[in-house]
Amino acid sequence: MQLANPHIKPGQEDVLYHIALGTKSHNLQYLFHDVKFVCLGGSPSRMRQFAEYLVSVLQIEIPSGMGLTNIASGSDRYVLYKVGPVLSVSHGMGVPSLSIIFHEIVKLLHHAGCSDVTFFRLGTSGGLGIEPGSLVITEEAVDGLLRPYMELATLGKLVQHPSRLDPDLAQELLSLAQADPACQAHNTYLAKTMCTLDFYEGQARLDGAFCDYQEKDKMTFLKKVHESGVCNIEMESLCFASYCHRAGIRGAVVCVTLLDRLKGDQISTPHDTLEDWQRRAQNLVASYIKQRLKRST
Amino acid sequence: MQLANPHIKPGQEDVLYHIALGTKSHNLQYLFHDVKFVCLGGSPSRMRQFAEYLVSVLQIEIPSGMGLTNIASGSDRYVLYKVGPVLSVSHGMGVPSLSIIFHEIVKLLHHAGCSDVTFFRLGTSGGLGIEPGSLVITEEAVDGLLRPYMELATLGKLVQHPSRLDPDLAQELLSLAQADPACQAHNTYLAKTMCTLDFYEGQARLDGAFCDYQEKDKMTFLKKVHESGVCNIEMESLCFASYCHRAGIRGAVVCVTLLDRLKGDQISTPHDTLEDWQRRAQNLVASYIKQRLKRST
Repeated sequence: MQLANPHIKPGQEDVLYHIALGTKSHNLQYLFHDVKFVCLGGSPSRMRQFAEYLVSVLQIEIPSGMGLTNIASGSDRYVLYKVGPVLSVSHGMGVPSLSIIFHEIVKLLHHAGCSDVTFFRLGTSGGLGIEPGSLVITEEAVDGLLRPYMELATLGKLVQHPSRLDPDLAQELLSLAQADPACQAHNTYLAKTMCTLDFYEGQARLDGAFCDYQEKDKMTFLKKVHESGVCNIEMESLCFASYCHRAGIRGAVVCVTLLDRLKGDQISTPHDTLEDWQRRAQNLVASYIKQRLKRST
Repeated sequence: MQLANPHIKPGQEDVLYHIALGTKSHNLQYLFHDVKFVCLGGSPSRMRQFAEYLVSVLQIEIPSGMGLTNIASGSDRYVLYKVGPVLSVSHGMGVPSLSIIFHEIVKLLHHAGCSDVTFFRLGTSGGLGIEPGSLVITEEAVDGLLRPYMELATLGKLVQHPSRLDPDLAQELLSLAQADPACQAHNTYLAKTMCTLDFYEGQARLDGAFCDYQEKDKMTFLKKVHESGVCNIEMESLCFASYCHRAGIRGAVVCVTLLDRLKGDQISTPHDTLEDWQRRAQNLVASYIKQRLKRST
């Protein structure tokens, strides 16, 4: 894992502030040298649950008296679990929150001397014209103006970073979903994902604290977005995709849809059903990792 | 608390998804009718600690066998504590994460029938040309291009929301800081705050996973920002200020600075010192609330 930053030099201390780890305080190579997969998701409890699920899927032996532990527990900003060659990490909500943890995980893997690492974002989203509970694998991430790049104010200028994802990885995940009996209960799509900086007005909802537009304006916009090939809307894919591209990392975004935004705004499906749906992205990514590890042994 | 949204109608169910509360599942008026202050901060554990501190400062009587509880515990996205008339709420990191909780707290207060509520953001930040550990009360929030508004893609168009904060409230806080013996150990400034969408490149750091510029470019930019009147840089004030302005809410942003960005990028100050500094914003806001409550009785 090479860094696209000549200022970070070997031997110099590097504090990964938001995960309370560092090159001086921790032996990062000892702790993380064997990492081959990084799985990121918004919710800390969901990423803990995913780590527990991986223990069983990958048949990881946990020594007696031991258990999974949050390696980033020195900070309360993110959680970080390691299950064999997989990191399960929370990223909070929105592009800025994902940006911080992405920077620090890439530096962590660099300091640990890792190579050939694949990244996944496992998320939730609002669907467009597809049944709630469907999976969407992101073909291309676009912003709230349907542009395929992340625009970031850097040194007082707007810089555009293309949000390209690995097409082969997306296709492999789609094929796996189509072949896997566990995925037959729902549909899986390969499509564009719109990534917004806001959940309410940014996603054309009518149910926020503020709303300056009418239902017909909302529907005109969402239909236009849908017609452009977008099947779901969330809040992190653009940054994930553009940073994977910049870092030369194979990355994929797999999100479940919690509702059809062409039919409503509120998420009022019972909690247990939502939990069940959220496991669908976890199942697909865990199956993929299992298959890849089998192939490499 | 009026909503600037005609689509939210009395009697209709409203699910506040990210804090797992709702008008049908909870009696919001019973739970929250007496709220007069909302304090928002990034870290969940810091906002719990602030709630505990308020119990002692405001001399809130807690019935035997009872204790503070996270009212939003049905979700793991944010924490929400209530201490008498004060809510202590985490907002995560970055504008999108703050945006979600701001929308849902304003709707919560509206459904509960609250009036005359004052909002605070208590945060951490990087300082510019001032001693680490100083407090900065935000006079005006500007974005990464030094513009005093939040730009949000809404229905496919960029909409600009002015980020005005209440000048009287900021001045009252400054006067209180200058008069309070507990605030004599550090400086307090009233100044502009720059709010960015990224912690590394967005704040001209050299220590991220990516960096396409040189140290001299960084210094030229940070000095220009400082000369424009900005004393600190963080990641939420722009949204906080513009939403307070839109909602007609008196709001203030009080941040401690953890380092001087004209001297470095890494936060390597010992944890205990950082904790101590972070209590400075809490002390000032708690003193203000105590004074206001005294005046109104």
